[in-house]
Amino acid sequence: MQFLTKGYQESTEDVLNGAIFDEDHDEMVIVKDIDMFSLCEHHLVPFFGKVHIGYLPRKKVVGLSKLARIVEIFSRRLQVQERLTKQIAMAITEALKPAGVAVVVEASHMCMLMRGVQKMNSRTITSTMLGVLREDPKSREEFLTLIKN
Amino acid sequence: MQFLTKGYQESTEDVLNGAIFDEDHDEMVIVKDIDMFSLCEHHLVPFFGKVHIGYLPRKKVVGLSKLARIVEIFSRRLQVQERLTKQIAMAITEALKPAGVAVVVEASHMCMLMRGVQKMNSRTITSTMLGVLREDPKSREEFLTLIKN
Amino acid sequence: MQFLTKGYQESTEDVLNGAIFDEDHDEMVIVKDIDMFSLCEHHLVPFFGKVHIGYLPRKKVVGLSKLARIVEIFSRRLQVQERLTKQIAMAITEALKPAGVAVVVEASHMCMLMRGVQKMNSRTITSTMLGVLREDPKSREEFLTLIKN
Amino acid sequence: MQFLTKGYQESTEDVLNGAIFDEDHDEMVIVKDIDMFSLCEHHLVPFFGKVHIGYLPRKKVVGLSKLARIVEIFSRRLQVQERLTKQIAMAITEALKPAGVAVVVEASHMCMLMRGVQKMNSRTITSTMLGVLREDPKSREEFLTLIKN
Amino acid sequence: MQFLTKGYQESTEDVLNGAIFDEDHDEMVIVKDIDMFSLCEHHLVPFFGKVHIGYLPRKKVVGLSKLARIVEIFSRRLQVQERLTKQIAMAITEALKPAGVAVVVEASHMCMLMRGVQKMNSRTITSTMLGVLREDPKSREEFLTLIKN
Amino acid sequence: MQFLTKGYQESTEDVLNGAIFDEDHDEMVIVKDIDMFSLCEHHLVPFFGKVHIGYLPRKKVVGLSKLARIVEIFSRRLQVQERLTKQIAMAITEALKPAGVAVVVEASHMCMLMRGVQKMNSRTITSTMLGVLREDPKSREEFLTLIKN
Amino acid sequence: MQFLTKGYQESTEDVLNGAIFDEDHDEMVIVKDIDMFSLCEHHLVPFFGKVHIGYLPRKKVVGLSKLARIVEIFSRRLQVQERLTKQIAMAITEALKPAGVAVVVEASHMCMLMRGVQKMNSRTITSTMLGVLREDPKSREEFLTLIKN
Amino acid sequence: MQFLTKGYQESTEDVLNGAIFDEDHDEMVIVKDIDMFSLCEHHLVPFFGKVHIGYLPRKKVVGLSKLARIVEIFSRRLQVQERLTKQIAMAITEALKPAGVAVVVEASHMCMLMRGVQKMNSRTITSTMLGVLREDPKSREEFLTLIKN
Amino acid sequence: MQFLTKGYQESTEDVLNGAIFDEDHDEMVIVKDIDMFSLCEHHLVPFFGKVHIGYLPRKKVVGLSKLARIVEIFSRRLQVQERLTKQIAMAITEALKPAGVAVVVEASHMCMLMRGVQKMNSRTITSTMLGVLREDPKSREEFLTLIKN
Amino acid sequence: MQFLTKGYQESTEDVLNGAIFDEDHDEMVIVKDIDMFSLCEHHLVPFFGKVHIGYLPRKKVVGLSKLARIVEIFSRRLQVQERLTKQIAMAITEALKPAGVAVVVEASHMCMLMRGVQKMNSRTITSTMLGVLREDPKSREEFLTLIKN
Repeated sequence: MQFLTKGYQESTEDVLNGAIFDEDHDEMVIVKDIDMFSLCEHHLVPFFGKVHIGYLPRKKVVGLSKLARIVEIFSRRLQVQERLTKQIAMAITEALKPAGVAVVVEASHMCMLMRGVQKMNSRTITSTMLGVLREDPKSREEFLTLIKN
Repeated sequence: MQFLTKGYQESTEDVLNGAIFDEDHDEMVIVKDIDMFSLCEHHLVPFFGKVHIGYLPRKKVVGLSKLARIVEIFSRRLQVQERLTKQIAMAITEALKPAGVAVVVEASHMCMLMRGVQKMNSRTITSTMLGVLREDPKSREEFLTLIKN
Repeated sequence: MQFLTKGYQESTEDVLNGAIFDEDHDEMVIVKDIDMFSLCEHHLVPFFGKVHIGYLPRKKVVGLSKLARIVEIFSRRLQVQERLTKQIAMAITEALKPAGVAVVVEASHMCMLMRGVQKMNSRTITSTMLGVLREDPKSREEFLTLIKN
Repeated sequence: MQFLTKGYQESTEDVLNGAIFDEDHDEMVIVKDIDMFSLCEHHLVPFFGKVHIGYLPRKKVVGLSKLARIVEIFSRRLQVQERLTKQIAMAITEALKPAGVAVVVEASHMCMLMRGVQKMNSRTITSTMLGVLREDPKSREEFLTLIKN
Repeated sequence: MQFLTKGYQESTEDVLNGAIFDEDHDEMVIVKDIDMFSLCEHHLVPFFGKVHIGYLPRKKVVGLSKLARIVEIFSRRLQVQERLTKQIAMAITEALKPAGVAVVVEASHMCMLMRGVQKMNSRTITSTMLGVLREDPKSREEFLTLIKN
Repeated sequence: MQFLTKGYQESTEDVLNGAIFDEDHDEMVIVKDIDMFSLCEHHLVPFFGKVHIGYLPRKKVVGLSKLARIVEIFSRRLQVQERLTKQIAMAITEALKPAGVAVVVEASHMCMLMRGVQKMNSRTITSTMLGVLREDPKSREEFLTLIKN
Repeated sequence: MQFLTKGYQESTEDVLNGAIFDEDHDEMVIVKDIDMFSLCEHHLVPFFGKVHIGYLPRKKVVGLSKLARIVEIFSRRLQVQERLTKQIAMAITEALKPAGVAVVVEASHMCMLMRGVQKMNSRTITSTMLGVLREDPKSREEFLTLIKN
Repeated sequence: MQFLTKGYQESTEDVLNGAIFDEDHDEMVIVKDIDMFSLCEHHLVPFFGKVHIGYLPRKKVVGLSKLARIVEIFSRRLQVQERLTKQIAMAITEALKPAGVAVVVEASHMCMLMRGVQKMNSRTITSTMLGVLREDPKSREEFLTLIKN
Repeated sequence: MQFLTKGYQESTEDVLNGAIFDEDHDEMVIVKDIDMFSLCEHHLVPFFGKVHIGYLPRKKVVGLSKLARIVEIFSRRLQVQERLTKQIAMAITEALKPAGVAVVVEASHMCMLMRGVQKMNSRTITSTMLGVLREDPKSREEFLTLIKN
Repeated sequence: MQFLTKGYQESTEDVLNGAIFDEDHDEMVIVKDIDMFSLCEHHLVPFFGKVHIGYLPRKKVVGLSKLARIVEIFSRRLQVQERLTKQIAMAITEALKPAGVAVVVEASHMCMLMRGVQKMNSRTITSTMLGVLREDPKSREEFLTLIKN
């Protein structure tokens, strides 16, 4: 349990400390298929799956493994998937001040299979888009195209 | 038979009772690949497959397993696939007052294979889109992109 | 041979007789992967594959197995693939007066492999779009998205 | 219902009439992936899937489509899968007097998904082996190897 | 929690009551890919996956959905995977007195991914073979061949 | 070598002679996955892969195997992939006067793997679009959608 | 038709002329997935698929494309699949005097789909094994293992 | 180490010397799935994957293997993925003066799996688009469509 | 580097402490697809892949996550793949005194792709079998069958 | 051409120099999917594909990339596939004196597709087994099992 909620003791600042670099790059950077494991705050039942992150840098890029660390900080807490998605997007926005951020989370929820409904195969998808990635449908579509297969 | 039509004794209100939460989230929430089993009202022949649901919340989100429960309520009746699709979409609209709802149902119909035509491999796809998801082609396309594998 | 050309003795009216229902549904209905087998009228050589049908109902829906029957009526004749595609689309338009119809046929032609060229792997795709599905690129794109795996 | 039980009016003799040929061939002949649809006699619930047939001819071979017809005769009845498998094997043995016969049936049973247990993904496999294919483990293994993809 | 441990209130006798039939069949009957969900008794952490069951009948066959029910009885308890596998095999042996029984369980254990080791992709396979299926390597191999894709 | 360059002795006119039919069809006709084999004119090294052809007829359609023959005429020469693509598109335009033509060639080049770079897995894609298929982005997108698996 | 039966004018001797080489090799040589197209002699209906050939050389090996040519000689005739399989095996035995020969043919028969039975997905597998490959079960198994994916 | 950084001793000019040809072609040329291996400059940890390159020629085309060579020049250095992507795009722009260039790099980073985070399955995607491919969303989308499967 | 070699500070005893349970089970227990990452001791170049472990218990079973921990202890050192395989097998033998142990390691070696040979796709497989799993070919074969897909 | 035949200037001794290590390991070591490219000596036509190598060490193991180098030495010559397979096996036997060696080569031959026969999809498989891997059918089968996907 302690391990599953260790996200509370970590902050984005600690994690990103020193891993933000100046790089003359302004096109989308995507890290996809980051494994994620979390606990639903309503019934303490696990949900897990993958996180896909994209951002449009404004001359600042972050070490790639740091994006995975940010996922850890917010998934190792009692969560709902909608909030987890938003918190990851907000944390990246605060740290990098990028032109845009996109986060998509695809997860299986144990509550869908361990209780009465028993829908073994269903998956839940949530997304948060900020900045250019929210306003410009073409960027949004490009992100969605690139995270597929 | 009793089991197959038990949907008549259930209402969306009973099922959703207490499972609607306030959450500051306004991007699309999708639950895909919900297994579905129903009976065609014309020949009492089974049809079954998957339901994909998406909605754009207006600060209200629903417990994910409840969407699967709504599928159960309307599929455990004598149905036609077109009406089933619409009823699921309407029920979600009434319960959550979301900005938009999308429901896609993909099913195999026993009548396509147990009778003369014998088309073993064909599948039927129906959809209902309401609100923003009906009017805004970009949202619609985004939903269709995200439910594909 | 008699079996292969039995489509000449059948009409859409006979087949659809009594299988058109009033249903308050106006979104696209798709039946995909309907197996098809026909004979090329030029060399009496077989071609076969799959038919995908979509239509936008105007309050009238057809029993799903009837769409497969319409495919049978027109494929069990001496044909060319382009005409087969069009005839299926026209027959549905006449019977249902829908807002739009889309038919896509994907087939392997024996003439591509039994004669000199020997292109074992090639497939031919033809399509006919009528009404809204012809004029509105978004509906057309939605149909093409939904018939893909 | 009449269509589903039309197997009762057909006999193997009628179907095979004139389609048994002398051919100097004594190695295994396999027809695999024959689509099958039947009704469980206990609850009148459908089960369907594929039949794989192999036999070791003794100078007599049968027209291939006739093996599919034999599957039709016995599946278009009220059945249990174990008996269906055996009846197909027995019918081939009587008609061809082969050195050996093997029949494997893989099916999905609606009763596994429309009632309480709801195991959408499970499949049932039954087999009957007669003659050399029963006694000689190597022939048996060869048959099982060849029917796999 | 009550739902997850409801297996304690059920017995194999109750479940199989009246669903054992006399059928003249003595070859292997397999039900594969039965979805399973259970709780590890050491840390109350979920594990889930698929159960494959085979048995060699001695003139008695069981309704197929009953095998799925037996899986439910023993998985809806606090378990370890090794014991679950054995209990399913023992229950079938007692009920049907078959010539042999084989049970294979493939499962993902949450403890492998929610705690320190984080091996997201690993799966655990256990098996119990009784009677002929234990002693005769050829039957054993045949069972393993048939449960593979 | 003679075989590989026999394309020089053939002309589109000879090949299409008598295989152009009047057919009242004006939607896209596609033949995809036509196997192709050619020789790079710079190093006489083979390149091979698939050709996808689409055209929008103006009341004239061509026998499908003829499109494969046109591919043969131009690939059985010393070529570069860019020119091969264009020549196929031009030949179809001249012969059929269609409203539009699209040709996509995907090929593996031996020079990418037999020489120093050793990139075993890379493939080269070239395309030529003429008429409506060049000017109308929607037609172009529809063609690209339909040639994908 | 002339093209489809041109196999009658060709003999194995003509084809193999000069393409048999001395090579100190005595382990199995396999050429798999040779495309094949033929005509059933009973109804003049096409059947087509793949041929897999293996042989155990006795110091003589044959140019690989010649094995494909032998397939052509015997498939471009009126055939039944069982005889085609045997003729290919016999021709190789006569030409190379190998220690053993194995031929497996997997084919789809148009008669299974253009006539009443309509089993679109079934395939027929025949095999002929001669010499060591007939007598030694281990060689036979090795051949079957190597021709699988 | 010397091998891994040999890119420093090579220039695009040397590599392309004499391999730029005049060809009357102005549609997109794509070379996809070029294997790439590089070293991250921050921790000297490897990252590797695939590069996809597209350009819109202005009457000048480059020998295809040269594009692979340009990938080698810039990947055999200490790099970050964002900069590698940009350098490849810039080098092609300088050498060919094309109407547009697109470069997409998909890579696995060892730092994501050898250190604490242990995200074995995640991949990073970066892109640089220049000229027409940057400004025209339709060209951009076409490129992204063609590099997918 | 410290992280990559932390295996030296851990012992199997510490890790297994208290996680060995008495369970009346004597059939094979398999944990497959355990992700592994290690460093080759000759050039300090990474190799990584999957470990499959099987053992035949003698009334003692180990907590499943502990097998993954044993993989960590020996892979987080400077290694060669052959030795890593053997050390995992030996550690399990010492801790559990099982009737038999089997360990298979499949890995990609960076040295195969970052240096001259550039074989991007090759993988190395090593195995160690002890006790019954070494001496009894049937157990060995059963293990190999079960770890395959 | 020089590049394609550079294998003549290299010897196994040079390549293996110093890369043979003493390691207490006597179970099979396999390196599979080594890309290979060669030229057929009869028509100077390319053939290419994959090599799978296994050996049973006698206390001596070889650096893994050296096995790939041995493949290079013998494939970069004018060859026939049967001889290439044998030479690789012999070279490993001489260098390591192992208890057994197995080499399997799967290749596509350009001559099968650039000349008359045009069998685009066929592949040729050759193998050489020496020592224990030749005499012991179980080792042979184990090798063949492990090189399959």
